[in-house]
Amino acid sequence: MDSPRPRVVIIGGGFAGLYAARTLRRAPVEVLVLDRRNHHVFQPLLYQVATAGLGAIEIAEPIRRVLRTQANATVLLAEITAIDTDRRQITTAEGRTIGYDFLIVASGAVDSYFGHPEWEEFAPGLKSIEDAMRIRRRILLAFEEAELTDDVDERQGWQTFVIIGGGPTGAELAGAVAELARHTLVEEFRRFHTREARILLIEGGDRILSTYPPHLSNKARHQLERLGVEVVTGSLVTEIDERGITVGDRRIKARTVLWAAGVRASPLGEALGVPLDRAGRVLVESDLTVPGHPEVFVVGDLASVDAVPGLAPAAIQMGRHAATTILGAVEGRTSEPFAYVDRGSMATLGRRSAVAQIRGVRLSGFLAWAAWLTIHIFFLIGFRNRAVVLFEWARSYFTYNRSARLILLDREG
Amino acid sequence: MDSPRPRVVIIGGGFAGLYAARTLRRAPVEVLVLDRRNHHVFQPLLYQVATAGLGAIEIAEPIRRVLRTQANATVLLAEITAIDTDRRQITTAEGRTIGYDFLIVASGAVDSYFGHPEWEEFAPGLKSIEDAMRIRRRILLAFEEAELTDDVDERQGWQTFVIIGGGPTGAELAGAVAELARHTLVEEFRRFHTREARILLIEGGDRILSTYPPHLSNKARHQLERLGVEVVTGSLVTEIDERGITVGDRRIKARTVLWAAGVRASPLGEALGVPLDRAGRVLVESDLTVPGHPEVFVVGDLASVDAVPGLAPAAIQMGRHAATTILGAVEGRTSEPFAYVDRGSMATLGRRSAVAQIRGVRLSGFLAWAAWLTIHIFFLIGFRNRAVVLFEWARSYFTYNRSARLILLDREG
Repeated sequence: MDSPRPRVVIIGGGFAGLYAARTLRRAPVEVLVLDRRNHHVFQPLLYQVATAGLGAIEIAEPIRRVLRTQANATVLLAEITAIDTDRRQITTAEGRTIGYDFLIVASGAVDSYFGHPEWEEFAPGLKSIEDAMRIRRRILLAFEEAELTDDVDERQGWQTFVIIGGGPTGAELAGAVAELARHTLVEEFRRFHTREARILLIEGGDRILSTYPPHLSNKARHQLERLGVEVVTGSLVTEIDERGITVGDRRIKARTVLWAAGVRASPLGEALGVPLDRAGRVLVESDLTVPGHPEVFVVGDLASVDAVPGLAPAAIQMGRHAATTILGAVEGRTSEPFAYVDRGSMATLGRRSAVAQIRGVRLSGFLAWAAWLTIHIFFLIGFRNRAVVLFEWARSYFTYNRSARLILLDREG
Repeated sequence: MDSPRPRVVIIGGGFAGLYAARTLRRAPVEVLVLDRRNHHVFQPLLYQVATAGLGAIEIAEPIRRVLRTQANATVLLAEITAIDTDRRQITTAEGRTIGYDFLIVASGAVDSYFGHPEWEEFAPGLKSIEDAMRIRRRILLAFEEAELTDDVDERQGWQTFVIIGGGPTGAELAGAVAELARHTLVEEFRRFHTREARILLIEGGDRILSTYPPHLSNKARHQLERLGVEVVTGSLVTEIDERGITVGDRRIKARTVLWAAGVRASPLGEALGVPLDRAGRVLVESDLTVPGHPEVFVVGDLASVDAVPGLAPAAIQMGRHAATTILGAVEGRTSEPFAYVDRGSMATLGRRSAVAQIRGVRLSGFLAWAAWLTIHIFFLIGFRNRAVVLFEWARSYFTYNRSARLILLDREG
C-alpha cells in the first residue's frame, strides 16, 4: 500500500458506508472499508429473518463481494476502537493503527434501553443478523415450550408475545408474529391452538408510527388489530424480567419480549471527542464533517442532522454526499451542505397490508404493500437475493408457510 | 393423551426416524417423535452449507412441518437421557418420563476422534447445521485473516486447509473448499491470491472413497487433483493443534483443519444396556430389535447391521422396516428380518464432477455429477427447498458464486 493516492477510510459497511465506497469507485483515491462483520445487511427486511420468513443469507451480502469489481477498494474485517483525529489514524481492537487522509465514520446505531441495560437480556433488540436469529430462536422456542408443558398458566406465558415500541420495526414484528401464530403454525401443534396466542404491541406515545400522519397511524392500528395484535398506546414499560413486563400498574406475563423502542448511536461517536446529541449522535456541520476536521465525515445513523430520519434512504444520501465532497476536495472544489431529499417512507403490516407516504401521496392496505414489496426488492443488493426473496414472498403469500424456521443451538467455533 | 391406541415413541428426526413416522401415518397408533433439534437435516448436502454454497434453511425443515398433516403424530423438542426398557419408559433431560408401547431409537452418530477428544476443538466435524455453520465461519475467517496479516508465514498458515478423512464427506469438503479458493473468491481479496491456497485431503488408508471400486477411487483422486486438492493417502494424523497437524513425521502448518475421519454411535446406545460393537453401535437382531425386547427397535447410524453402510438410503430403509414391523405386531403378524437393498452410492467432487455406482453401473465425471444432482434434489424434503437449491445450483454453476458467505458472531439468546 505505497500508493500516492489519498486514502479514504470508511468505518462501517451499512447503507451509508457502502454507498460512500461505491460513489468513489472511479475516484483517484484508495478506499479502505472496515467492518467488524463481513456482510452488509439489508436492515429493512431484518424483521423477516427474526420471524422466520427469510433466511439470513437472503438479506445479507459479503461486503467484499459487493465491492469485488471496485479495483480501488480494499475490505478488512476489523473492529475499530479508537480514532485519533489529530494524527489522522484509527486503531483496531487488535491494536493495529491505520492512517487516513479522509475518514468516513458510518458505524450506525445500537439499541437503547433508556437507562435499563439489564432489560437487554430479556428483551432483545433487532440491529444485526445475529440479533434476528436470536429473536427467531426465542419465538420458535416459545411455541415448542407451549407444546411441552401441561400447565395452562405456564403455556399462556409462552404464548404471550410482547413487542415494545410502536415504530416501523415494532409494527412489522408484531404483524409478522401474528401471521406466524394465526396462519403458519396452526396445523403443527397438537396440544394447544396457536391461534390463541396473544400478541401485544406497546407504545409509550399516543399512537403507533408517530412519524406518519395520524390518519395513517390509525389505518395501521386497524390493520394490526385485524391481524390479531392488541395495540396498547400511551403506556410506558417500567419493568421487564424473565417472566413478563409491567406497563403502568399492569403486570403482563410473557416469556417472549422484543425490543423496538429506541436506538442510540454507536459508541464510536464518543471516540471522536466532539459534541454529541442526547442519543449519542455526532452533531455534524452542514456538510456532514466534524467541527474542526473537514477531512472527517460522520454519516448514517451516527450523524445528528436536523429533520433527517434514521432510515436507509437518508443513510444512502449521506454516504453519497460525503463521498462526493471528498472527490471535490481531491479535485480542489469546496464542500456543499447536505440536503436531504425525502422520497417517502413505508411500513408493512402482516402479509399484504402496509402504510406508505411517497412524495405526499398516502397509501394504505394492499396497494401500499405492493409498493413496499416492489421498492424493497429493487433495493436489495444482489440478483440472487432479489430472485430468492421474490420467490419466497410469492410462495409464502399463497401457502402462508415461513421457511426459515430453524432453532439453532448456540455453540462456539 | 388418553388414547387406547399403542404409543410408538421415535427418538430422532433424521432420515430413519422421519421415515418410520411417515410409514405409520395411517396406522392405528399414536406416534410421538422426539428430537433435541426442531429440524430434520438433509445430511448429504451438509458440506454445501459448510462451504457457503447453500444456506442452512435450504437443507433443513422443521420436523413438525414435515409431519403437520399426519394427525396421529405429535412432535416434541426434547433431549432423551435415559431409557428404561423394563418399565418401557424414557426420560428427558428435564426429568420428565414418557411411556411407550413401541420404541424406535434413531439418534444417529456423532464424530469420533479415536481417543483424542481434545482434537475436536481444532478440527470440527460435520454432523449438524450448527457444525456446518461453525466450519463455514472458520473457512471464511481464514481468508479474512490472510487479508489482514502482513506476515507471509502467518498468511500461509491461514491459507492452508486440511481435511482429514478421505470418505465421501472429506472428498466433498475438499472439492468445495478448492472451488471457493480457486473460483468464488479470486476477485475479492487485494493483498494475496486466493488461488495459491493449499487444500490437503489426508486419508489413513491407501486410497480415498474406499467403499467404491479402486477404479472409481482413482478417478475421484484425479478429479480432486485437477481442482487443486493435494491428496495424501496412507498417512495417519498423530497430532492436531491450533497451528496445524502432524502426519507421520511431517508437520503441516494449517489454521483450518476439518474432521471427516470417523463417527461413532450416539451415546444413547449405551442407555439401552445391550451389547454394542466397537463403534458404539447396537448389535441388533435381524429384525432390528434389541435382544430380549421385540418392542424396541434401533435404526439408522446407531444400528450395527452386517454389510449395511451408514448412508441415508440405508437409514430410510431401516426406519421403514421398523415401522412396518410395528404395524405387523399391532395387526398380529410376526416380524421379518431386515434386508438392505443397495441402490448405489455417489459422491460429488467440485462443481461438475462426481463418482457414482448405481445398480452395478459405475459413473464418473459430469454424468455422475448430473445423476448426483438429480437424485439429491429429488430426495430433498419440501418443494421450497428443491426449487431454491436447484436455482442456487444453476446460478453457482454459471457464476461460480457461493451465496451463503456470512460470518456470524456467536452470541447467546
